[in-house]
Amino acid sequence: MAPVTADGIARDIEAIRKRNPLVHNITNYVAMNSSANALLALGAAPVMAHAVEEVNDMTSLASALVINIGTLSAAWVDSMRLAMERASRSRIPVVFDPVGAGATPYRTRVSLELLAATPPTVIRGNASEIMALAGKGSQTKGVESVDRPENAAHAAADLAKRYCCTVVVSGPVDLVTAQDRCVEIANGHPLMAKVTAMGCIASALVGAFCAVNSDALTAAAGAMATMGVAGELAAEKSAGPGSFYAHFLDSLWRLDRETIASRLNARQAATTDG
Amino acid sequence: MAPVTADGIARDIEAIRKRNPLVHNITNYVAMNSSANALLALGAAPVMAHAVEEVNDMTSLASALVINIGTLSAAWVDSMRLAMERASRSRIPVVFDPVGAGATPYRTRVSLELLAATPPTVIRGNASEIMALAGKGSQTKGVESVDRPENAAHAAADLAKRYCCTVVVSGPVDLVTAQDRCVEIANGHPLMAKVTAMGCIASALVGAFCAVNSDALTAAAGAMATMGVAGELAAEKSAGPGSFYAHFLDSLWRLDRETIASRLNARQAATTDG
Amino acid sequence: MAPVTADGIARDIEAIRKRNPLVHNITNYVAMNSSANALLALGAAPVMAHAVEEVNDMTSLASALVINIGTLSAAWVDSMRLAMERASRSRIPVVFDPVGAGATPYRTRVSLELLAATPPTVIRGNASEIMALAGKGSQTKGVESVDRPENAAHAAADLAKRYCCTVVVSGPVDLVTAQDRCVEIANGHPLMAKVTAMGCIASALVGAFCAVNSDALTAAAGAMATMGVAGELAAEKSAGPGSFYAHFLDSLWRLDRETIASRLNARQAATTDG
Repeated sequence: MAPVTADGIARDIEAIRKRNPLVHNITNYVAMNSSANALLALGAAPVMAHAVEEVNDMTSLASALVINIGTLSAAWVDSMRLAMERASRSRIPVVFDPVGAGATPYRTRVSLELLAATPPTVIRGNASEIMALAGKGSQTKGVESVDRPENAAHAAADLAKRYCCTVVVSGPVDLVTAQDRCVEIANGHPLMAKVTAMGCIASALVGAFCAVNSDALTAAAGAMATMGVAGELAAEKSAGPGSFYAHFLDSLWRLDRETIASRLNARQAATTDG
Repeated sequence: MAPVTADGIARDIEAIRKRNPLVHNITNYVAMNSSANALLALGAAPVMAHAVEEVNDMTSLASALVINIGTLSAAWVDSMRLAMERASRSRIPVVFDPVGAGATPYRTRVSLELLAATPPTVIRGNASEIMALAGKGSQTKGVESVDRPENAAHAAADLAKRYCCTVVVSGPVDLVTAQDRCVEIANGHPLMAKVTAMGCIASALVGAFCAVNSDALTAAAGAMATMGVAGELAAEKSAGPGSFYAHFLDSLWRLDRETIASRLNARQAATTDG
Repeated sequence: MAPVTADGIARDIEAIRKRNPLVHNITNYVAMNSSANALLALGAAPVMAHAVEEVNDMTSLASALVINIGTLSAAWVDSMRLAMERASRSRIPVVFDPVGAGATPYRTRVSLELLAATPPTVIRGNASEIMALAGKGSQTKGVESVDRPENAAHAAADLAKRYCCTVVVSGPVDLVTAQDRCVEIANGHPLMAKVTAMGCIASALVGAFCAVNSDALTAAAGAMATMGVAGELAAEKSAGPGSFYAHFLDSLWRLDRETIASRLNARQAATTDG
């Protein structure tokens, strides 16, 4: 049970920069450009492909698969299912981002169907989305949370058990929960909530970390800490959300072990039992 | 008949920042990320959703609906129609952006069908698009205007009457026309025309203002003035269209009453009768 | 046989800024916003339209057509075919970007079918994509090249003959090949590979140059040199890939003859025979 440390995160980033893992994304229209840029800035190789004719082939080339339902429609859901099955058969890690689950019944239902068919390696969502998937009755405000991560702790633990996976609840303090353990990451900055697709970017980076680190909880926590530290660095240089985004990518690009070590605010927490 | 004043605009912005209204966008692929970022920078909560299975549910949660045909296709038009009907039944304000109407017969026809089925609260387009909808025979150059706003004044008045709505013709001077009155906004900067999706962003911001202000003409004029003032501030800091976009979002984020008051260039104009 | 010179490139840019040619793009979701912004920054008028109901009309208005298969699906491929046929009938130049050809059989097959049905004016891809189209067996890593441009020289020459077109292989040194001649452009910066859609932007700019210059090889080489010089200028001001993108657009916007002349690194090379 590896703890989450600056050294470990820096090692994963170094591995991503060196191996340049291919991360296959089936994600939403809003986040495609941003996710690709964040993966490139981190050192990974993003690809976006959703055609039912090719997802099987593309996933099989990849070191991680990221599924994000942000602008879902029926045809895309078919491709998501195929890609998740393919990844599962080939033991390629899968990150699932249930954007807007709880806002509409369709999103909640599609998410649960995809998860039931092929449990992923990591689920990452905000508190409302995670509570909606766990049947805790939260109603997501579009794609924004109306709940705080601490309120979703039980829901996260439930999902971690149900799907034998790691669950990330992102928010002011990120909660990263596996069946046997739990980490809290208190890095980040409020401006991150004012830039679109930052949650989707987080899921994409979790994919890149999972591509080089088979311990999903450590990988997911490392990705969330990386997001948070890069976000803090960017916010200090920014006059608002527009300049923030460019500084955020630059910070990902330049992130080093010393900076992570000086800022990492991670806490191994007790496992939350439902 | 509320005049358009800096105090009124600042009050609307304050309301948006405080209430954080959910704005449901069915918009084009080019503008999705930019529109979401601009809505966030202004203080609203954007959501993008287009699946026929969920648009009814998503619209019913929203405080405003923004429909934009910039990269339309048949399946999306079905969802637009459903969402507009749902918004109309629930008295949720609807902004319609006929991107590229006049460029192809398909865009003009789809726009007129959607407008006839469910008249919106506000139509916002450039001069060529508004003239095309009014049957004045302009041919839009792709998505760019070949006409000046003043030439579209009669067309705007015609549409305002035909659909009992407010019509915004954006350009160097924005024309905001309702059945009984008309406002001109002379804020903005030429660099805004060199950044993609600025028109789509304007429509999205009109949606946010309509979410907090039931007087559609004042809301639309306030949104256009906000665009223009933020654009002026950004242009003064920019070396070109790339840096402009980041400064524009930062300016939206930081905009205050004093800045609006010192720059607002609005003129109550005579209603233009067709 | 016009050589590639700073004066010639500056003349083409001047013509683009003056004539503001409409460039019709059927491109991928990741690159749409970036391509539109780059075309605007250069001085062209971008439009994105893919509905089968309107592509014929939109293409017929345009001065160039850019087809990019980056996030292809069956319905979009139908529209690509129609648009390419329409452009060909009207002698509108066509740029084809086979994003990810070689990564999946679907992308390679679709590319070859589209090219066989309607040979384009210019094909632009990275080394792996060009080698895959020529049947040289390279496997593209998602959308990234695993080969260097010099290895694709024979493949480029093969394709130039097969389709009677100009072929651009982009990379650290760009190779621009026509049936009778060949140019190498050694401008650019490694940071360009860390920003998504830069290849797609290159294809879009080739479209804009072809809209004002009927000599396809000179137009394509000029566009690649413009990319490279703007990229060098941007990289010198950037702290990473996030700030790079904004500086790149600003550099395109401000580019002048003197800057091009002082930096252009073009070499007329011998034609590579297969």
